[in-house]
Amino acid sequence: MEFKISKELISQLEQLIAAKRDSELNVLLEDMHHADIAEILDELDFNEATYIFKVLDSEKTAEILLELEDDLRENILSRLSPKEIAEELDELETNDAADIIAELSKDKKDEVISELQDVEHAKDIVDLLRYSEDTAGGIMHKELVKVNENWSVLTCVKEMRIQAENISRVHSIYVVDDENRLKGRLSLKDLLTTSTRAQISDIYISKLNSVKVDTEDVEVARIMQKYDLEAIPVVDELGRLVGRITIDDIVDVIKDEAEKDYQLAAGITQDVEANDSVLELTKARLPWLLMGMVIELFASQVLDANQAISDQFRTLMIFVPLLSATAGNIGVQASAIVVQGLANGSVKEFNRHYFSKELTVSMISGTIISLFLLCYHYVLYGQFLVGFAISISMIAVILFAATLGTLVPLLLHRNKIDPAIATGPFITTSNDVFGIFLYFVIARLILGV
Amino acid sequence: MEFKISKELISQLEQLIAAKRDSELNVLLEDMHHADIAEILDELDFNEATYIFKVLDSEKTAEILLELEDDLRENILSRLSPKEIAEELDELETNDAADIIAELSKDKKDEVISELQDVEHAKDIVDLLRYSEDTAGGIMHKELVKVNENWSVLTCVKEMRIQAENISRVHSIYVVDDENRLKGRLSLKDLLTTSTRAQISDIYISKLNSVKVDTEDVEVARIMQKYDLEAIPVVDELGRLVGRITIDDIVDVIKDEAEKDYQLAAGITQDVEANDSVLELTKARLPWLLMGMVIELFASQVLDANQAISDQFRTLMIFVPLLSATAGNIGVQASAIVVQGLANGSVKEFNRHYFSKELTVSMISGTIISLFLLCYHYVLYGQFLVGFAISISMIAVILFAATLGTLVPLLLHRNKIDPAIATGPFITTSNDVFGIFLYFVIARLILGV
Repeated sequence: MEFKISKELISQLEQLIAAKRDSELNVLLEDMHHADIAEILDELDFNEATYIFKVLDSEKTAEILLELEDDLRENILSRLSPKEIAEELDELETNDAADIIAELSKDKKDEVISELQDVEHAKDIVDLLRYSEDTAGGIMHKELVKVNENWSVLTCVKEMRIQAENISRVHSIYVVDDENRLKGRLSLKDLLTTSTRAQISDIYISKLNSVKVDTEDVEVARIMQKYDLEAIPVVDELGRLVGRITIDDIVDVIKDEAEKDYQLAAGITQDVEANDSVLELTKARLPWLLMGMVIELFASQVLDANQAISDQFRTLMIFVPLLSATAGNIGVQASAIVVQGLANGSVKEFNRHYFSKELTVSMISGTIISLFLLCYHYVLYGQFLVGFAISISMIAVILFAATLGTLVPLLLHRNKIDPAIATGPFITTSNDVFGIFLYFVIARLILGV
Repeated sequence: MEFKISKELISQLEQLIAAKRDSELNVLLEDMHHADIAEILDELDFNEATYIFKVLDSEKTAEILLELEDDLRENILSRLSPKEIAEELDELETNDAADIIAELSKDKKDEVISELQDVEHAKDIVDLLRYSEDTAGGIMHKELVKVNENWSVLTCVKEMRIQAENISRVHSIYVVDDENRLKGRLSLKDLLTTSTRAQISDIYISKLNSVKVDTEDVEVARIMQKYDLEAIPVVDELGRLVGRITIDDIVDVIKDEAEKDYQLAAGITQDVEANDSVLELTKARLPWLLMGMVIELFASQVLDANQAISDQFRTLMIFVPLLSATAGNIGVQASAIVVQGLANGSVKEFNRHYFSKELTVSMISGTIISLFLLCYHYVLYGQFLVGFAISISMIAVILFAATLGTLVPLLLHRNKIDPAIATGPFITTSNDVFGIFLYFVIARLILGV
């Protein structure tokens, strides 16, 4: 059922481009979905992609533009004049147009805006550019259907027909007063079953969820999911209806939020992608590496200070990597479960019941690992007491790592810091240093050094 | 605008429950959204929550049931008779009802099904139970509006009114033939602007995306996002229309998929949550810990084999944790970017351009870290050559880790294994062992031992 790009199609297109057979290109691509054409352009080289882009008409290319990979879009936009870009944007919904303008350089941005033909549309786009990306204002559309509470049903139906023409999905009809303040919504059913002379103010439903322009996008996502909404109106500080957010805008927010946790866990700060520049990638990654290095310098100090005991009991040192890795792994596991619990609401604050469960899980895991290690050490190196010291230290370090792993995300969360940081390099390396320190302290106690 | 639970509300409810003032409870909760009531019940103890649940009528409680935390839902279901559970399920959409039945024990499941009153509804629910959770069949609803291609527009409009009554959001009208095979969809506009005597077969649109019942849920999510669909029909092996998936069903799939990556990166296999049992948590976590341990035993072997050189150049050993941590961090960073690239389609297979960019980023990071280390070592321990050996080894290990981090997810992906495993403990510990091995090999070469 679904479209798949074939090698034949690509080479056919390349031949048509080389021969400049524009009309045949148009026929070939005419019936394809814009998302599929975008996929094809991503497979071609920049020149070929731009060629096809210029052959197709702007109604189609505008939608394609939205679906392209960032670097190809950037490349194509750089080859279009401000007037040509404005033609594309005139075809798009306000929100999508604003997103593309935001990618342009300051100078080009102004030129493109001045070339927009539809004045109302241009005003809406410029309005959207004011809001920061991660707020309701930054993700909302201007396209919506609204009616005045003082209208009659008849006027309302007429007006709605005009407004709905430019909107792909109506979802809801919003009711506003003369000052454009949001009053409620209208059910299509009520509208159709009421006398055409009735006033809107008599039939609208005043109970309605809405968000403010400066509400954080993740908060909007949470509200829409909780109340199972397909669209939510956005109001400004004075309660005036300024836009609407639909569920498909929220899908990206949810995805980005989940990906951010993953990136933090992997030690990547900014939202970078495989096709970002070396500089951007380095900026997102190097700080974590340096911080990890500085923390691990303390580990080197701990090892340095324990050279004597390591010389005396030679196997102590060789299990340090095993100890570090196990402590790191268990700490990250403990943190990840708390982080996800905080995200989905099943964990809210410190909870003794949960904490003792975590310690039980760690104790079981720690005991199994330590017993295995005790046997391994005895078989390979004899020296039961040293093996015993290593095993007991291992359990202690595991319990410590689990405790830190549980508490740190809670502490970060309470201080309004993203708890997912706790599953990243900062905690794993800190765990390392504490773990190695504890290991030698306990080993010294048992071995009586 | 949004509802917030207050301590006062909770204590007021607790008093009303203690005094068994049912009608006042009903009045207090009457106008609240079911998602808000679910949040309140999660704050109360099991007995109080069950009490309120029994006081409210099943139209409301059915929706509440869907929103509760897993353990509270389980608890409440265990206190309801099969007949009472069936009453709840009769109020729900087929998909939601099937999800709740799937949580029951085998015996109770059959009893509940036999108590369902609406036979058509029961048939649909049982039908849905056949499909595995992570397929289109497992996430689809039975609720949809369909018309026969042989009907006239008039019959069609009449039938649609009846069908739409039980459906909260119509989205699309599907057209089927006499054998219930999906033929296309109907635009509401065409339906309203055509003569009532026209046949559906003359006006329907045959171009339509659909998925098969056994299509993977993540694939459905991908298609719906790519083509920006709010609903997609589901067909069986013979092309018969059996259900429909809407965008809100897909939101959960997208969230789960992103969370799975995060869990794999944290070394947690199954989909566990903070309130799962100790056994489940241990089963999801212990295998990774054991595997990490076994791999790190090789690291202990490498260190054991290098005791002599460590004795001679005493600072070599103390930087092993720093080396491991840095290699691990850079490897995970490299993998995470590839994993996300594979997920969003910006990386498809091995790409020399991207690989050389990754090596450049690692080379820059490695050089900065090594230079810092060289100075640190010289200031603290003198012995320039040893510091030099450590620094060069560090660069080599970093480049090696970045290479492994880039290639392993691609390799896993090509073999149809989830590439996010590469950001978990398996790769970090393997990186450790190879890194430590390489470190000593290079140090030996430079120091001439």
